[in-house]
Amino acid sequence: MKKIAIVTSGGDAPGMNAAIRAVVRYGIKKGLEVYGIKRGYAGLLDEDIERMTFASVGGIMERGGTILRSSRCPEFVRKETRAEAAEVLRRNGIDGLVVIGGEGSLNGAMFLGQEQKIPVVGIPGTIDNDISMTDMSLGVDTCLNTVVDAIQKLKDTATSHERAFIIEVMGRTSGYIATVSGLVTGAEAIIVPELPVNYEELGNKLLEERERGKINCIVVVAEGAASAYTVARHLEYRIGYETRITILGHIQRGGSPTSFDRLLASRMGVAAVDALLRGETSVLTALNGGKIVTVELDEVLKEKKKLDMELLNLAGLLS
Amino acid sequence: MKKIAIVTSGGDAPGMNAAIRAVVRYGIKKGLEVYGIKRGYAGLLDEDIERMTFASVGGIMERGGTILRSSRCPEFVRKETRAEAAEVLRRNGIDGLVVIGGEGSLNGAMFLGQEQKIPVVGIPGTIDNDISMTDMSLGVDTCLNTVVDAIQKLKDTATSHERAFIIEVMGRTSGYIATVSGLVTGAEAIIVPELPVNYEELGNKLLEERERGKINCIVVVAEGAASAYTVARHLEYRIGYETRITILGHIQRGGSPTSFDRLLASRMGVAAVDALLRGETSVLTALNGGKIVTVELDEVLKEKKKLDMELLNLAGLLS
Amino acid sequence: MKKIAIVTSGGDAPGMNAAIRAVVRYGIKKGLEVYGIKRGYAGLLDEDIERMTFASVGGIMERGGTILRSSRCPEFVRKETRAEAAEVLRRNGIDGLVVIGGEGSLNGAMFLGQEQKIPVVGIPGTIDNDISMTDMSLGVDTCLNTVVDAIQKLKDTATSHERAFIIEVMGRTSGYIATVSGLVTGAEAIIVPELPVNYEELGNKLLEERERGKINCIVVVAEGAASAYTVARHLEYRIGYETRITILGHIQRGGSPTSFDRLLASRMGVAAVDALLRGETSVLTALNGGKIVTVELDEVLKEKKKLDMELLNLAGLLS
Amino acid sequence: MKKIAIVTSGGDAPGMNAAIRAVVRYGIKKGLEVYGIKRGYAGLLDEDIERMTFASVGGIMERGGTILRSSRCPEFVRKETRAEAAEVLRRNGIDGLVVIGGEGSLNGAMFLGQEQKIPVVGIPGTIDNDISMTDMSLGVDTCLNTVVDAIQKLKDTATSHERAFIIEVMGRTSGYIATVSGLVTGAEAIIVPELPVNYEELGNKLLEERERGKINCIVVVAEGAASAYTVARHLEYRIGYETRITILGHIQRGGSPTSFDRLLASRMGVAAVDALLRGETSVLTALNGGKIVTVELDEVLKEKKKLDMELLNLAGLLS
Repeated sequence: MKKIAIVTSGGDAPGMNAAIRAVVRYGIKKGLEVYGIKRGYAGLLDEDIERMTFASVGGIMERGGTILRSSRCPEFVRKETRAEAAEVLRRNGIDGLVVIGGEGSLNGAMFLGQEQKIPVVGIPGTIDNDISMTDMSLGVDTCLNTVVDAIQKLKDTATSHERAFIIEVMGRTSGYIATVSGLVTGAEAIIVPELPVNYEELGNKLLEERERGKINCIVVVAEGAASAYTVARHLEYRIGYETRITILGHIQRGGSPTSFDRLLASRMGVAAVDALLRGETSVLTALNGGKIVTVELDEVLKEKKKLDMELLNLAGLLS
Repeated sequence: MKKIAIVTSGGDAPGMNAAIRAVVRYGIKKGLEVYGIKRGYAGLLDEDIERMTFASVGGIMERGGTILRSSRCPEFVRKETRAEAAEVLRRNGIDGLVVIGGEGSLNGAMFLGQEQKIPVVGIPGTIDNDISMTDMSLGVDTCLNTVVDAIQKLKDTATSHERAFIIEVMGRTSGYIATVSGLVTGAEAIIVPELPVNYEELGNKLLEERERGKINCIVVVAEGAASAYTVARHLEYRIGYETRITILGHIQRGGSPTSFDRLLASRMGVAAVDALLRGETSVLTALNGGKIVTVELDEVLKEKKKLDMELLNLAGLLS
Repeated sequence: MKKIAIVTSGGDAPGMNAAIRAVVRYGIKKGLEVYGIKRGYAGLLDEDIERMTFASVGGIMERGGTILRSSRCPEFVRKETRAEAAEVLRRNGIDGLVVIGGEGSLNGAMFLGQEQKIPVVGIPGTIDNDISMTDMSLGVDTCLNTVVDAIQKLKDTATSHERAFIIEVMGRTSGYIATVSGLVTGAEAIIVPELPVNYEELGNKLLEERERGKINCIVVVAEGAASAYTVARHLEYRIGYETRITILGHIQRGGSPTSFDRLLASRMGVAAVDALLRGETSVLTALNGGKIVTVELDEVLKEKKKLDMELLNLAGLLS
Repeated sequence: MKKIAIVTSGGDAPGMNAAIRAVVRYGIKKGLEVYGIKRGYAGLLDEDIERMTFASVGGIMERGGTILRSSRCPEFVRKETRAEAAEVLRRNGIDGLVVIGGEGSLNGAMFLGQEQKIPVVGIPGTIDNDISMTDMSLGVDTCLNTVVDAIQKLKDTATSHERAFIIEVMGRTSGYIATVSGLVTGAEAIIVPELPVNYEELGNKLLEERERGKINCIVVVAEGAASAYTVARHLEYRIGYETRITILGHIQRGGSPTSFDRLLASRMGVAAVDALLRGETSVLTALNGGKIVTVELDEVLKEKKKLDMELLNLAGLLS
């Protein structure tokens, strides 16, 4: 193996730059040429590839986003498109690829490996924490801290008024961000896609708590379960006091990565290069009980990571 | 003057606690008894009043919200209600009142002073920065930093995708928060209530910038001008790429106050007590060129503070 | 088991309040009376104990420090003192104790359990991350983010001058904080107690990097290895440019806990109560590969957690 | 006027990049060519000058430090050196210069203007807030928030132990940072160069407060008054409990600038270009009661800005 490339694909996540830095620098130290592919799979198809150096990844670890930029590339579901991508890689003499991204991107990576015979290693990068067989994905920890900081600010004002605050958070089909952020801020309610929501029950619970003297009322809702507006509409006439809405949107994908995400990214970047050098392909670097291991991508993609319902239960017990 | 009271009214703002602390501690040092009125004018009418001590305001300066809690009290527009409030104050022997709040609250304060003959001093506390005759109100600086931090996070992800990000910020009828936060983050567009918005022109401008190579597209919209959804709807079909929305909501009212807000609050709290001791009434403590002065409340409330259009102009020139 | 108590001992760590909250609220939900012991083992000896309620731990999760306060209690190494402490617990009808703290405190806990036959469960709370058999202790993650944030600020100014910046961080005899914070900020050198430091070699390395064009020079030193002043004195005449010093001190123990620390604390608090209810004693709640388990305190205290030298190696490879 | 240049000199301060951006972009919009001089006056002497474009200042506003880098240049006190610098500027056709820096740098600017007849405008950039005739200098507000954040973290742990915490902050011969940061965090004592310190009196005050029940003890000391170690040595044997030390060092110069500093920098950058275009020279852009004005550099440099002793008094009254 002489030349490897790295690509960031799909929604970006804090920590991607730290992983790029690790792949580039560790690759170079291992005697490889390392190339960066711009704008995800779309840039790969456009042959938008450039040589990376030790210096070209200086000062990027602390920055959100991805210096390689990213994009979604729906046409990558087609076999011909992937064959084209493999052809670009071969034409450029690239004999190993590192893909950082979420479910869709890793699916593309798996096909590049299994179907197109490109040696490929994935790194889980998504704030949704929905990739199975790894304890965490890049960006989850940073995202959680951003959400927690926002809810904490809401609580300042929440104790000053007679109102319910509804905050909508990301996570696509996963309720992980909503659950953990709600748990660690003591939110009064958490609505996730994994459980049906009963607004009547919820309204009664909030009314009871108000009667018992609680002056905060914060409801965290995962975007995959309902929109903040839907929740507001359902609750307002049941609880009889006003609601106020916060939709954090893409600020959850940004920000300087936390220490945790930078460390995880650095370790996974190194592990990805090592895996390529060992001849592994179609695998994912994964955090498994404090250790970085590799797992088969087709195993990983068989099903989404499930929400630990114990966490949701815990949130209810402690709030 | 022997007994004074302090009340926080209307929407809360970071720095209110620092002002409460200053009024209480400075008042006590000046030989006064100081009382806290809970839940704004509503609590005043309910006679929800308690003695404050040096210790009761310990450790509050750094906290968002207001330990006295706040509320809106629409019935305070009625003269009889205000007479009742004045009666409560007199019955409790309170011969001086400090009111911290925004326009509506200060209006109530003015009437308590002029009409009900209660010695009263206002402190401008509102994130909207719409109180005239003072350079700044409590909470504005903290709010701006919260908004700037959020936009900065958006920019991380904005450089990674082909999208426009629309962020809706507070300010009621004022475009100050939108203007300054947009200016200091280099937002591509700022929509304020003070100027009509021409979506066709705006769409063309954004398209041109994209063609010139700009990869960021951040639009800051003041809630008083339009909702983020309205802006998105108008822009999407004109610019032809997707939009993503962030509505910060009440996180803009929370958070630990900045150094600036704590200092301003401490100085205004002291100035308010001094004004009462000098026998001034129906005045507002105001920041005037680095100095804290008092200005007549009826002058202040004649018209809203105007947005400095030079700032908006500057934002356009530099972005 | 009817009555349990909780105590925080030794140096405080962010997350302690979240653990107190979890023990109190979960304990109450399980039908227990829960008591808080003030000021560590010293307060236990003084019988400074008070009943905790669901409300008494409201709003504490986000706060640094410990609402129970803490203290060091050197006399706890004496058997008679521990017998006295056990007597206080028995006199108060307390039949289960949760101790949150670092090595010394957990040692006291082990003796209370094994020697004095008090059912006791420990929770690892120390920013030093030197407790073995648990992946993390409470406060480590928050501390790391505080240190990383500080180093990041140094880097801003470091790129503007011809200087070396030396930052001294905590960790007692452990180099974990120095290693990880240095790794994830790309520090030019990391000095830890686990490895001898060769100042001549280090000086040469820094000079070479300067010659290769590096304009940053940040040295992270663990307090257990040397003081920042010692490092400065050794380096200055070797590298020939000025050094500047930062000693973070106890700001590393403060701050609102991160999402990670709050979650870990909540889970460990619940696990500690469950362990007491199951009749376990002289055990520690530990994070083991994403799961919370209990491990024997005497096993834990046999030796300190070792620094993963792979991390130090990684830092060198990537910087 | 066709070509102007900008230079950052001396110690860096947050906001310098925002000022560079404003000078460059506004200058270009006004039809000027704008050049950046690297590494302060030293780079000017080395003719290290490059053309700046609208794009070359993209994304810099939010970053600490200065993209032009800075340096101290002691030889600039010599007239011949300044003549050489003026010659470099003339040789490059530069007929206007903007200098961002503190006292020493502005002194150099004044001489370039008055003695060497280079049209020059200064912008006050120093965290020390010791430049007279302007309400604030660039970087002061950001620095204050960094210090306040650090003290706040100390307070978390301070309430948990029986200790005094001594924190040394910057400011050279000015006690402004110490005074304001101590005031807005309720520090128990503030030591500044402007007032002699009486350790016996201070020790007694701290002991009395401890006896009255205060459990925090935070002492903020300005580097110009004494080192934290000196204060510790003086206090420890007088108060009889341990002290702990924090020396923030250069983290006070770093960090993403606050909204206030970015706005001030943007306005001053524009004002500097306008002043050059109007033919003004040897002036400083200054904040004067909310407005940006220009003042004569030789007036400014006659004496240092004095500390407002009222602030120090206020801190004592309220803590």
